[in-house]
Amino acid sequence: MTGHPTPAPARITASILVIGDEILSGRTKDQNIGTIADHLTELGIDLKEVRIVPDEAADIIAAVNAMRGRWTYVFTTGGIGPTHDDITADAIAKAFGVSIDIDPRARALMADYYATRKIELTPARLRMARIPRGATLVKNEVSGAPGFMLGNVIVMAGVPSIMKAMLANATPNLQRGAPIESCTIEIPHPEGEIAELFGAHAQAFPDVAMGSYPQRKDGQLSTQLVLRCADGARLKLAESTLVAQLVAKGLIAPTEDVR
Amino acid sequence: MTGHPTPAPARITASILVIGDEILSGRTKDQNIGTIADHLTELGIDLKEVRIVPDEAADIIAAVNAMRGRWTYVFTTGGIGPTHDDITADAIAKAFGVSIDIDPRARALMADYYATRKIELTPARLRMARIPRGATLVKNEVSGAPGFMLGNVIVMAGVPSIMKAMLANATPNLQRGAPIESCTIEIPHPEGEIAELFGAHAQAFPDVAMGSYPQRKDGQLSTQLVLRCADGARLKLAESTLVAQLVAKGLIAPTEDVR
Repeated sequence: MTGHPTPAPARITASILVIGDEILSGRTKDQNIGTIADHLTELGIDLKEVRIVPDEAADIIAAVNAMRGRWTYVFTTGGIGPTHDDITADAIAKAFGVSIDIDPRARALMADYYATRKIELTPARLRMARIPRGATLVKNEVSGAPGFMLGNVIVMAGVPSIMKAMLANATPNLQRGAPIESCTIEIPHPEGEIAELFGAHAQAFPDVAMGSYPQRKDGQLSTQLVLRCADGARLKLAESTLVAQLVAKGLIAPTEDVR
Repeated sequence: MTGHPTPAPARITASILVIGDEILSGRTKDQNIGTIADHLTELGIDLKEVRIVPDEAADIIAAVNAMRGRWTYVFTTGGIGPTHDDITADAIAKAFGVSIDIDPRARALMADYYATRKIELTPARLRMARIPRGATLVKNEVSGAPGFMLGNVIVMAGVPSIMKAMLANATPNLQRGAPIESCTIEIPHPEGEIAELFGAHAQAFPDVAMGSYPQRKDGQLSTQLVLRCADGARLKLAESTLVAQLVAKGLIAPTEDVR
């Protein structure tokens, strides 16, 4: 041993708060959680929690305060349009205990956007320029009205195309972590037949996250074993050791594709 | 007035707890939340909260205890398979402070299922017969191993086809509420142009939930106004009053289809 081991760098973490009665009633099927999850994984940020709450100020405030104290970032979607049921910006201001009013920067962005499209900037539309004091704007080329970032909370629209534009524009301001590398081993057997071996392997590599996901393809049961680790060398070792054991037990062919 | 108004019956409420690292990493896109949300709406049960947590006992226990005290039901999905990362049943037992062991009823169900398919009931598979003491089994015709209901918590698989079988089998034991009726009015204008009128209308009918949902179809912005209420007569009145106002303002044609 040549000294103390290097401590693993602290992980950057995140959570998502989806706001909207229409998701809870089933009327609208959420598409944003998966998009944000994929994006965070690419940035090396660990998504640790998701919550969906109704358009109720008390629920939004309680959730955002629980999540912003616990994780590096909170991403919210929904509730920042021009109608009476859009209460997210006001709820976030209350959660932080700051004031909220028409923001001159947001108003200017929207005035520009609407002017080139000959759309009137009505009082209802101006409601979308209400931004909590101290927030940074998050631009949106799709519909003009911005989202915002206040402290560690990024507030975005619920419409998927607008959310994507805001997520892209918020990204340069985010800390990134070491990307989590992963590998998937496909086993042409049901989970029950690899569970014991796989469990022992997970114990031998406590620093490598291992998950087992059953699948049914054309009536045949198969299993995907997924290994995930920020340390590529450890991942490779865990993968090759596992493949050798699976081959030895005849559970995969020696030439089995590993991807 | 002929006496005190009849109090509205208490609503039956529910929450969903999705358990799984694979959802948070983006690797698997959840399909169960929307299915359960639609089903609960049909049963007249109000879905009030959803959370997604990783395969970590402390997170599962904290979430299930927060949710089971607040809502009539908690539906969990994921983490009840045969592998080491399937820890939901043990976490639920800990959350309730009850013991957990191989359940003879679950073992018998599985033995039957596997025997007819000539599959071996291995120790790994028997792990799926671990059921917390005091739970009622929730059968599953798709893969044999049951879910369970403990107190007001219904524990189901994460694989969508198995989840659906368990949800159907749990349903006869659920209390139902008065179904929420809804109507949708399609406006061929962006949200900003109806926001003021719609907000005033929502204030006039505080007992009718009103939401506004922007859409973009073939590049044209339109808006769906959704009204929801358990009292069908109030809903009809709120709808006809709103339609009359929209027609008077020229925002919909007098013959506009309302659905």
